[in-house]
Amino acid sequence: MDAGVLETAFLQAQETVGRQGDIVRSLKAQLKDGKVERSAVDEAIEMLKQVKIDLERKQKALEDATGKTASANKEAFRSAMLNALERRLFFIPSFKIYGSVAGFYDYGPPGCAMKQNVTQTWRNHFILEENMLELECPAVTPEIVLKASGHVERFTDFMVTDVKTGDCHRADHLLEGALEALLEDRKNPASPEAAKAARDLLARVGELGAEELGAALTQYGVKAPDTKNDISAPFPFNLMFKTSIGPRGDLVGYLRPETAQGIFVNFKDLLYYNGSKLPFAAAQIGNSYRNEISPRAGLLRVREFTQAEIEHFCNPADKSHPKFQSVAEVAPLLYSRELQMGDEKKPKRIPLGTAVAKGIIANETLAYFIGRTYLFAQRASQWGGVGLNADRVRFRQHLQHEMAHYAEDCWDFEVECSYGWVECAGLADRSAYDLNAHAAMSKVEMSAYERFAEPQEVDVLSIVPNKKELGRLFKKDAKAIADALEAMSECDALEMAGKLAAGQAAGIKADGQAFEMQPGFVEIKKQRKKMSGRNFTPAVIEPSFGIGRILYCVFEHCFYTREGDDQRSVFSFTPVTAPVKCTVFPLLQRAELNERAEAMSAALTRERLSNTVDTTGTTIGKRYARTDEIGVPFAITIDYQTVEDSTATLRERDSTAQVRVPLAELPALVRRLTDMELSWQEVAAKYPAQAQAGDE
Amino acid sequence: MDAGVLETAFLQAQETVGRQGDIVRSLKAQLKDGKVERSAVDEAIEMLKQVKIDLERKQKALEDATGKTASANKEAFRSAMLNALERRLFFIPSFKIYGSVAGFYDYGPPGCAMKQNVTQTWRNHFILEENMLELECPAVTPEIVLKASGHVERFTDFMVTDVKTGDCHRADHLLEGALEALLEDRKNPASPEAAKAARDLLARVGELGAEELGAALTQYGVKAPDTKNDISAPFPFNLMFKTSIGPRGDLVGYLRPETAQGIFVNFKDLLYYNGSKLPFAAAQIGNSYRNEISPRAGLLRVREFTQAEIEHFCNPADKSHPKFQSVAEVAPLLYSRELQMGDEKKPKRIPLGTAVAKGIIANETLAYFIGRTYLFAQRASQWGGVGLNADRVRFRQHLQHEMAHYAEDCWDFEVECSYGWVECAGLADRSAYDLNAHAAMSKVEMSAYERFAEPQEVDVLSIVPNKKELGRLFKKDAKAIADALEAMSECDALEMAGKLAAGQAAGIKADGQAFEMQPGFVEIKKQRKKMSGRNFTPAVIEPSFGIGRILYCVFEHCFYTREGDDQRSVFSFTPVTAPVKCTVFPLLQRAELNERAEAMSAALTRERLSNTVDTTGTTIGKRYARTDEIGVPFAITIDYQTVEDSTATLRERDSTAQVRVPLAELPALVRRLTDMELSWQEVAAKYPAQAQAGDE
Repeated sequence: MDAGVLETAFLQAQETVGRQGDIVRSLKAQLKDGKVERSAVDEAIEMLKQVKIDLERKQKALEDATGKTASANKEAFRSAMLNALERRLFFIPSFKIYGSVAGFYDYGPPGCAMKQNVTQTWRNHFILEENMLELECPAVTPEIVLKASGHVERFTDFMVTDVKTGDCHRADHLLEGALEALLEDRKNPASPEAAKAARDLLARVGELGAEELGAALTQYGVKAPDTKNDISAPFPFNLMFKTSIGPRGDLVGYLRPETAQGIFVNFKDLLYYNGSKLPFAAAQIGNSYRNEISPRAGLLRVREFTQAEIEHFCNPADKSHPKFQSVAEVAPLLYSRELQMGDEKKPKRIPLGTAVAKGIIANETLAYFIGRTYLFAQRASQWGGVGLNADRVRFRQHLQHEMAHYAEDCWDFEVECSYGWVECAGLADRSAYDLNAHAAMSKVEMSAYERFAEPQEVDVLSIVPNKKELGRLFKKDAKAIADALEAMSECDALEMAGKLAAGQAAGIKADGQAFEMQPGFVEIKKQRKKMSGRNFTPAVIEPSFGIGRILYCVFEHCFYTREGDDQRSVFSFTPVTAPVKCTVFPLLQRAELNERAEAMSAALTRERLSNTVDTTGTTIGKRYARTDEIGVPFAITIDYQTVEDSTATLRERDSTAQVRVPLAELPALVRRLTDMELSWQEVAAKYPAQAQAGDE
Repeated sequence: MDAGVLETAFLQAQETVGRQGDIVRSLKAQLKDGKVERSAVDEAIEMLKQVKIDLERKQKALEDATGKTASANKEAFRSAMLNALERRLFFIPSFKIYGSVAGFYDYGPPGCAMKQNVTQTWRNHFILEENMLELECPAVTPEIVLKASGHVERFTDFMVTDVKTGDCHRADHLLEGALEALLEDRKNPASPEAAKAARDLLARVGELGAEELGAALTQYGVKAPDTKNDISAPFPFNLMFKTSIGPRGDLVGYLRPETAQGIFVNFKDLLYYNGSKLPFAAAQIGNSYRNEISPRAGLLRVREFTQAEIEHFCNPADKSHPKFQSVAEVAPLLYSRELQMGDEKKPKRIPLGTAVAKGIIANETLAYFIGRTYLFAQRASQWGGVGLNADRVRFRQHLQHEMAHYAEDCWDFEVECSYGWVECAGLADRSAYDLNAHAAMSKVEMSAYERFAEPQEVDVLSIVPNKKELGRLFKKDAKAIADALEAMSECDALEMAGKLAAGQAAGIKADGQAFEMQPGFVEIKKQRKKMSGRNFTPAVIEPSFGIGRILYCVFEHCFYTREGDDQRSVFSFTPVTAPVKCTVFPLLQRAELNERAEAMSAALTRERLSNTVDTTGTTIGKRYARTDEIGVPFAITIDYQTVEDSTATLRERDSTAQVRVPLAELPALVRRLTDMELSWQEVAAKYPAQAQAGDE
């Protein structure tokens, strides 16, 4: 059998396993509610086992036939899919007529429509459902904001340059490439010790500092790709696009590297808007920018991309979530720290309730968002998920060293695609870090007030500058010094108190100048006070999504070719995400058919269903193939019987099954199918089947 | 009577006139279809006359009472409205905790929701309805694209600097300010001649070059505002934000000043996608950037803003539009060139069919988009317009000198607000200018092919380089010279042919070098050929919208205060644009009411209606006032009767009328009201009225 046929068979089997998995999960949920019998679930599980065995067999057959590793097959798959995407203008390299610029892509008509759909699904699933406060902030951001957030100092990648041509490369990518080549070299296999060392280093590349990275590059003799020239030592390159705001040229600005900062700087207003109550979540969907050193991996690593970020503000002492029970039994693949360090190195399906109870996930709120993300990703959730294969998505916990020092817990939402497991969202408990950073830089308090159930005795720090003494010694600076003393953090104040108590001097900065405090200049002490509440900086739990990456993975999970014809590619997009919901075909180029087709199109538009009429004279089979290729889920064909009895055929893309439906009922029917209020099975049961003309 | 009461009365009268105008126009349309009697129309017109007289009376009363001009009242109105907008977080000056940066605003929760709604209405009204090809291109754009479009050279404003402080000002704004001050100076009134000169100059400020502008600034003795220092001579300042793409720093990029260029550079692919057929339209909604010299006018002149642009590509010889008849009887206020130059200087309602027939609007396609824009702007169109007052919008034709040399006709969609008439969209027939510019720069052909009904005799230019001679004389450069000769435009070729025929030499550039052509080096002639079709560069008709400006004008047209209480401000947003569709109020803070309110909120969310529950203990009247202030059209109140008979009250914002409706029917009812499938009148007729508790 030829490889194309085997590949199609493999992809279809993969799709089947995904669907059967969905069915099992859905039946299990219904079993809980007493809606189905235990036997139905068992039967579905048995079926799942069988299709999994079938999948493994087909994968093996494919690998045997092609003599290629899985990764070579993946590349062939990707190139077939990208070809379909580019040919049908899902995306276009930007500025193509000028030779393009790496890292920039345009979304063409179907890609743009799908991006809207994914974004709108996200908005419905998160913002509308949770009543989040949505914001829209500018991308152009003055430097001070990004100094506070740490991006000006730390948002860097290590770069090396080709010493002769000046070409720039990412140091870690070059090192990874060299290590992988060494490990895969069949002609001169590395010694077991060398291989182990290379593997260990490969796992740590992301953690290396400039010096270690430079040493490793030298050790492995890494040269510039293509030219094979020597490379410079690695140095940090800031990934933000820089610009200048206003005509004077003295106000530095950057294009934001993430949308989150726009939410943080508005925290105070948002808290007030929410009636000063916690918890609440704010969200922003918008473009962010990263001036990547050398963008690779096509649509996955781009320089301008759409983010959808949520900042859930809560009391650090209470990270429970009122709606947690609604996801407690959702069981996504979790790849916890423990499982990553274990022998099997495989994620496991764990109900989120169990994961929180066992301390695998740090708190309910983080687990709640993991559950909501999982439902959003799938094929069939309340709003209709975006259509990823639930067996090819997982949540991977950050290892301790991967997390920033302030983070409490982090999980990446990863999707398996031809590039491997790709991070499509990050869910992090960032504690109070971001709000504290902006409070420190802006001198604006970023706190919330909590009223205790009953008054409590608490230790309160009191800082009382000796204003008389300060005034005498420091004259006009006295006020600024007193203010600076009063504004000290608890930590700084206690440190100063210690020094002063020991009879030493202690430094303080005020208005950019340094001053020396002596014992007696300020009184610092802890007092026990009865308080009816307290001010605190809220903790932030941040789910952050890359819309473009999710869309790309949807493309991969939905692409297949029809059995027996690897030229007929299909995207099995869910009706919610599909770029066009329905196509209308007059069977032949006749005025009486065209007129009815146009009228049907207008009726679909009135139902706000995006649709197209294809009146070209090609065969109906070719036209079906053409809409399959952009993933249109439904097609209406107007034929001569339509003229006689005002019915038309309705075709479903994946089964290619057709039914005959009265014209008058079609627009509302397609609307309900698209909204997933109605399944194709229900439609097929209600209306008479039609011979599958065009798809034989 | 106090001024507040008079102002409220005036604003309400203005609102009433707008509504009555809508009613008259709607009745007139129904009269055509035989749906209403002539007498009903006459009655409505009579009513319109009366409310107009009432409006004039109230305006006069207000002006008399306050002793203020209309413009002072407008400022008071604006400041009351901005206060309401800012208090309720419709917008927030960006980076507020860091002191803000002029020209940048965040949309807070209600503003963000409304912007989504306006944008989605635009997408439904234009893209979905017309089946346009929607694109999404990056904002970061390499320099060459904007060189081709002319922005690098010409996208400038004239700037002057304060010679002592270096502060920057827009030269034209300073001059306008000086002239207006001179004309309004009551203490030292200008002589009639001086006033006339100032008025004439004022009308021409936008057209002045650097030298004239400098001379005028000197003549009128203009100084820097605030400091009163001398100012520099005016010089052009490019308004694009500049950045650098990639790590090398040698690829200059700009943030796009408009979204249109992204469409033009993709023209070829889009034409192919459309089956190589014309006409078709492409559209893009996205952010554009202008580094304004000194942003004023708050939300109207910002540095980052959302545009929605359409490029309609058509055959320059055929600008008819297939759907033109659907707008032929739409009659917006047209302010044609003739009316602007005439004595009355007033726009007139002219049916678009008449306007095209009389040549007032250049062609059907341009007029079609004017009609569609007008329907989009209004209160009640098919999708529900965005809610502007149809009597305060007009289309103003560009005067001849305002248009670029290549433009065939241009109309600005202007909306009257407290700043005067504000341009919210531009509709221009730009001929083939943009495509030709990119074809010239990129050397990629930007043409379409037209098959003649039957073969035609046409003149074809033939350019045949004498390759042998060129090879002998120019050796390695010969090929480049031959290519350059063949690539000459028709104009250049004919000019060269003329020179050569006269025995003169003619220059040609190839690969950046200049070469001299002598007679005999190339043969250039026109030949008559029988052709079955021709290649041509399509013309472009461009409707271009500023979403933020439209939104701002919606705020102004919808803002009013309740009669007798100028503290109770209301935004009368249409249900389609309103940020929140429905609020749910438990009448009192009791568990049995709160539970039902939460259940109702969940049911509304299932209908995808954005809603909030207000469980605060304040009086129901205060809570109604609070939702009026963010323009929520409907409110559901859960009271003790709800517990008994499972009904609740539904309140409409503008009338404050209430009806009692079974709980089960409410979600779908609000859905239909919001979609404008059902009017409040119909609801009021069907359900029993409820005493207007809370609004007395």
